[in-house]
Amino acid sequence: MKRILIINPNSSAGMTRAIQDFAKVFVGNRAEVVTALTDGAPEFIETSADESQAMAGMVRLIKDNQEDYDGFVIACHSDPNLDLMKELSLKPVVGIGEASMRSACLIGDRFTVLSATLGSIPNKKTLVSKYNLLDQLSSVRALGTLCAKQTQLDLCEKVSRDAIEQDLAEVIVLGCANLVGMSFELQDRLGIPVVDGIASALSILLGLLDQGLSISKIRRYRSHA
Amino acid sequence: MKRILIINPNSSAGMTRAIQDFAKVFVGNRAEVVTALTDGAPEFIETSADESQAMAGMVRLIKDNQEDYDGFVIACHSDPNLDLMKELSLKPVVGIGEASMRSACLIGDRFTVLSATLGSIPNKKTLVSKYNLLDQLSSVRALGTLCAKQTQLDLCEKVSRDAIEQDLAEVIVLGCANLVGMSFELQDRLGIPVVDGIASALSILLGLLDQGLSISKIRRYRSHA
Amino acid sequence: MKRILIINPNSSAGMTRAIQDFAKVFVGNRAEVVTALTDGAPEFIETSADESQAMAGMVRLIKDNQEDYDGFVIACHSDPNLDLMKELSLKPVVGIGEASMRSACLIGDRFTVLSATLGSIPNKKTLVSKYNLLDQLSSVRALGTLCAKQTQLDLCEKVSRDAIEQDLAEVIVLGCANLVGMSFELQDRLGIPVVDGIASALSILLGLLDQGLSISKIRRYRSHA
Amino acid sequence: MKRILIINPNSSAGMTRAIQDFAKVFVGNRAEVVTALTDGAPEFIETSADESQAMAGMVRLIKDNQEDYDGFVIACHSDPNLDLMKELSLKPVVGIGEASMRSACLIGDRFTVLSATLGSIPNKKTLVSKYNLLDQLSSVRALGTLCAKQTQLDLCEKVSRDAIEQDLAEVIVLGCANLVGMSFELQDRLGIPVVDGIASALSILLGLLDQGLSISKIRRYRSHA
Amino acid sequence: MKRILIINPNSSAGMTRAIQDFAKVFVGNRAEVVTALTDGAPEFIETSADESQAMAGMVRLIKDNQEDYDGFVIACHSDPNLDLMKELSLKPVVGIGEASMRSACLIGDRFTVLSATLGSIPNKKTLVSKYNLLDQLSSVRALGTLCAKQTQLDLCEKVSRDAIEQDLAEVIVLGCANLVGMSFELQDRLGIPVVDGIASALSILLGLLDQGLSISKIRRYRSHA
Amino acid sequence: MKRILIINPNSSAGMTRAIQDFAKVFVGNRAEVVTALTDGAPEFIETSADESQAMAGMVRLIKDNQEDYDGFVIACHSDPNLDLMKELSLKPVVGIGEASMRSACLIGDRFTVLSATLGSIPNKKTLVSKYNLLDQLSSVRALGTLCAKQTQLDLCEKVSRDAIEQDLAEVIVLGCANLVGMSFELQDRLGIPVVDGIASALSILLGLLDQGLSISKIRRYRSHA
Repeated sequence: MKRILIINPNSSAGMTRAIQDFAKVFVGNRAEVVTALTDGAPEFIETSADESQAMAGMVRLIKDNQEDYDGFVIACHSDPNLDLMKELSLKPVVGIGEASMRSACLIGDRFTVLSATLGSIPNKKTLVSKYNLLDQLSSVRALGTLCAKQTQLDLCEKVSRDAIEQDLAEVIVLGCANLVGMSFELQDRLGIPVVDGIASALSILLGLLDQGLSISKIRRYRSHA
Repeated sequence: MKRILIINPNSSAGMTRAIQDFAKVFVGNRAEVVTALTDGAPEFIETSADESQAMAGMVRLIKDNQEDYDGFVIACHSDPNLDLMKELSLKPVVGIGEASMRSACLIGDRFTVLSATLGSIPNKKTLVSKYNLLDQLSSVRALGTLCAKQTQLDLCEKVSRDAIEQDLAEVIVLGCANLVGMSFELQDRLGIPVVDGIASALSILLGLLDQGLSISKIRRYRSHA
Repeated sequence: MKRILIINPNSSAGMTRAIQDFAKVFVGNRAEVVTALTDGAPEFIETSADESQAMAGMVRLIKDNQEDYDGFVIACHSDPNLDLMKELSLKPVVGIGEASMRSACLIGDRFTVLSATLGSIPNKKTLVSKYNLLDQLSSVRALGTLCAKQTQLDLCEKVSRDAIEQDLAEVIVLGCANLVGMSFELQDRLGIPVVDGIASALSILLGLLDQGLSISKIRRYRSHA
Repeated sequence: MKRILIINPNSSAGMTRAIQDFAKVFVGNRAEVVTALTDGAPEFIETSADESQAMAGMVRLIKDNQEDYDGFVIACHSDPNLDLMKELSLKPVVGIGEASMRSACLIGDRFTVLSATLGSIPNKKTLVSKYNLLDQLSSVRALGTLCAKQTQLDLCEKVSRDAIEQDLAEVIVLGCANLVGMSFELQDRLGIPVVDGIASALSILLGLLDQGLSISKIRRYRSHA
Repeated sequence: MKRILIINPNSSAGMTRAIQDFAKVFVGNRAEVVTALTDGAPEFIETSADESQAMAGMVRLIKDNQEDYDGFVIACHSDPNLDLMKELSLKPVVGIGEASMRSACLIGDRFTVLSATLGSIPNKKTLVSKYNLLDQLSSVRALGTLCAKQTQLDLCEKVSRDAIEQDLAEVIVLGCANLVGMSFELQDRLGIPVVDGIASALSILLGLLDQGLSISKIRRYRSHA
Repeated sequence: MKRILIINPNSSAGMTRAIQDFAKVFVGNRAEVVTALTDGAPEFIETSADESQAMAGMVRLIKDNQEDYDGFVIACHSDPNLDLMKELSLKPVVGIGEASMRSACLIGDRFTVLSATLGSIPNKKTLVSKYNLLDQLSSVRALGTLCAKQTQLDLCEKVSRDAIEQDLAEVIVLGCANLVGMSFELQDRLGIPVVDGIASALSILLGLLDQGLSISKIRRYRSHA
């Protein structure tokens, strides 16, 4: 049986558990899945400093587990250190930002990313631009803070509706790993596809494994002794 | 059990069988898969006229099978009539051109498409441009005709090696459905990932089904009575 | 005397007559012009399904009239099946969407397209992107429905003024064949150029004929027996 | 009867005569056409300094003739001072560079510009980029110097064939006013469309006049007292 | 000691003095700096006609001073005739538009240009596009006219705050030479970097001189006898 | 007196000394300059893994020296961890890759980067794309290994000449910090500008300090406690 390691680049035990619970159900008997938090990383990743703080732990996780796992998911929507992970790993590595945004392009003309905080917008746009997806981006919208009596789902619905009406979004991308598991209900409310980062990354990774595909090691991501 | 219909947009019984044989093995027990050829379509699809000739049959296939299948693959690498299929279908539809080229982006910086004929190059570039993937395209190369004693695999290897050396390709995309099944051996020879259209489209479609995702019907691809 | 066939891709006799009346006056004694509706096409073209429904009839029109006409205009602003028409035809073919938008670029920095319905906006943007004109597009704006006592001209004026003020439009493009003939009055009201699709396509087609130019048949649009 | 002034931005009497001879035949009885050379301009325009030297004379020509002419053609393929001409003139102004390259896009996927000298290539690419046509440019190729016994037509044919084979050109654009009149023969030899700057600019200008269109004066090109 | 000539492309003695006063203090003892107004130029430069009127005087200034100066600054934010200046000059030439906008890219992700008038916006966007900086442009905003009791600084602050909040600007570029000297105070008020055209052009020019760099004369900007 | 810290992201004492020697002479009495190597970094930086290995040391250098220095140069042409440095630092930070390539754009139309190794090309192109400079890039060329009796300067000259002739390069950018100091001689040989990373970064940094400019801390690069 295939074995997948989900690397949660932050150090939140709670979020790690939520990801693991979702992933286990999602993957079912197609693979064994383990989610690991990153030692030394901050509780939440937003800035380059946060990403850099997570790096050493992420490197260790990928190096120590190369033998034991068939592939890796990087479970933070800003794809921290993803190029490095692709370079170090001999097994396929999929970031949830890249996976969810490329998936969104397949099922609609324009997608909006729901971002946790206003502060993440510039980095998110940089990421979209890096993947050459700006022409299919309708907007990045920050969720901001919950009002009283408002659930996280209510808030996501409200911001999504603004994106649909004002930015002409056709697909919603959950731009933060802590929204994991929310896509199904949100999709029901909105009537348009909602892409979950973890689910899309796992789907793509399982697909790559089925296809016998891994990171190209000939140039950009070649590994060194 | 999920049911997938692979629509082969041409009318070649031989190619239909080859796709079906490969798909059945590839999908295994994850879904039931049926490949249908397109009545009224030409034997091989290269031009807009070929695509148009295939259209009526493809529309019929998708309309007649909406109830019975959970998703569709369009099994020609020029993604003929794909926007129309996405619009007509209430179930997810994946083209092997789009699927294979977006997949290639996830595992390397630049990909080269092996095209069956020199005549397909302009249309292929138009397709790559439509998906906004030009910045990750190293080249489109035509296979041309086999020399004596040369196998199709030999020819693919030769053209791929040129792409790797001269165009700095990091991933090879098999740009024609009749190369189905060749990716594994070619990958072994080349040492870099080779993406098969059918395999990547099936992987993505199965992933979309697992995620409960389908084509966004709110705007670009909304269906009409 | 040169002979031009205007192919109206829909089946509306009224619109066909309106186009013919306008075209006859516009072309004067420079050419003989005939407008034909498309059998089997819908009354109005907005979606890919509409375009596909028009296809067989359009193919027949172009094939049956190759000998008798010197050039063709495709008279629907979404340029349905235009690549196919260019490929099939040995005579020049001009779409009113492409003609009007490329013409607008020659006389101002940014143009706004008036689209019949909100539902046509994503397809229109896809078209603009296909022609690489996004950098000169100020906006696509839907006309929406007439208010009581409002004429179509009033509505076009109102939407155009919004485009001029809010989107910094410098040229207005009439993005629907059923606005034919309205450009002169609208231009008078607005004080900026208003491009009519039919007029611009006829002008360009007559110009191509004068220059002895036709579709390049060497690669992208080569015809097959 | 409409009156057109062709402004030849250089001071070569010979080239002015050649343009006038061609234009008169081309326009026939559709308009009266006069070609004027530019006092104070150099014999040949290649650099920014050449363009600047031509400016005062061009400004005078356009200002002195606004009343007497219905439209202007700027007959140098680098479109010298074209934005200025568009701004100063109340009548439509068409540059042969812009006209020929936008026309080429309508009849093929990719065009190659034949440039007089190697030194004009960077400026030509800058022009193509300014018009956002880089995605349809196959190449700019310099003609270089004639070999013994080689005619200008032979040379154009040779360079065009290289462009067709190596750069996948589908349309040839004559990138210098002194190639005027050569398009018909070259087209016969090559079998693909060859666009002449003067012919395409006259066609577009006559078309604009027929449509009652002129330069938008609301923003980018507004005139001042 | 290095000698720098600042060419003020307009003929305003007042603005010339303001630039000279600022430049002298800014440059200190690193170079001798002289600011010259342009004979025959208008008082303020906004349109292509204004730029053309300034041209002859600018050419004379650069030609007459090539021997005596080590470098030139073109002190108008629309970089009038800059390509010509680069071509004519054997010494480095820096435009304040190009200098300030390229500098802004180094210290933040997105910049907003404060433009003197609404009428300058299209030309400014054309300039940004020419330098390929559109992806880092948050907006161009016109200052408009002062309200009663409002200082120029107040107005700049207000417009900048709108840009920061609504357009997500991270850096402000003073898009008009007559705002010279205002950057320090405005920066203090806003808390984000404010780039002054004159200061940034002088800095870059002094840097080029230190590096022994000048305009490349091999192709695009080669000079002719 | 201003104090500048040059962070050499690798751990080579030799290269650090070479940079310091050059920088000291280049800066003269304008600032005090110190070059520090990075503890824990590899001897040479080419891959993402190399960059990641350098990160902790670089972070320490910038954090420990914020009080004592007025600005920082990151002296590796792949700009490793530059976004992180910009985010962490309250003083201006300039990368030699960004500085040299943006400087090249000011003095010519197209630049070629001389890269140390073939393996650095994909990363370099990614960097160029990140800065939106692809339209001004003529090529990235690897130096490869020295032949017998060939000096490093000879090799640079040879590869530059190929770039000038085949890629139409107008400016050469030294794409590796270990080429420091070579620009003057190479420029003499080639007759076109050669940009040195260290020199251009120091020039830009000194310019930013003169202008009182630093990294915008409002959004993309805001610092956190």
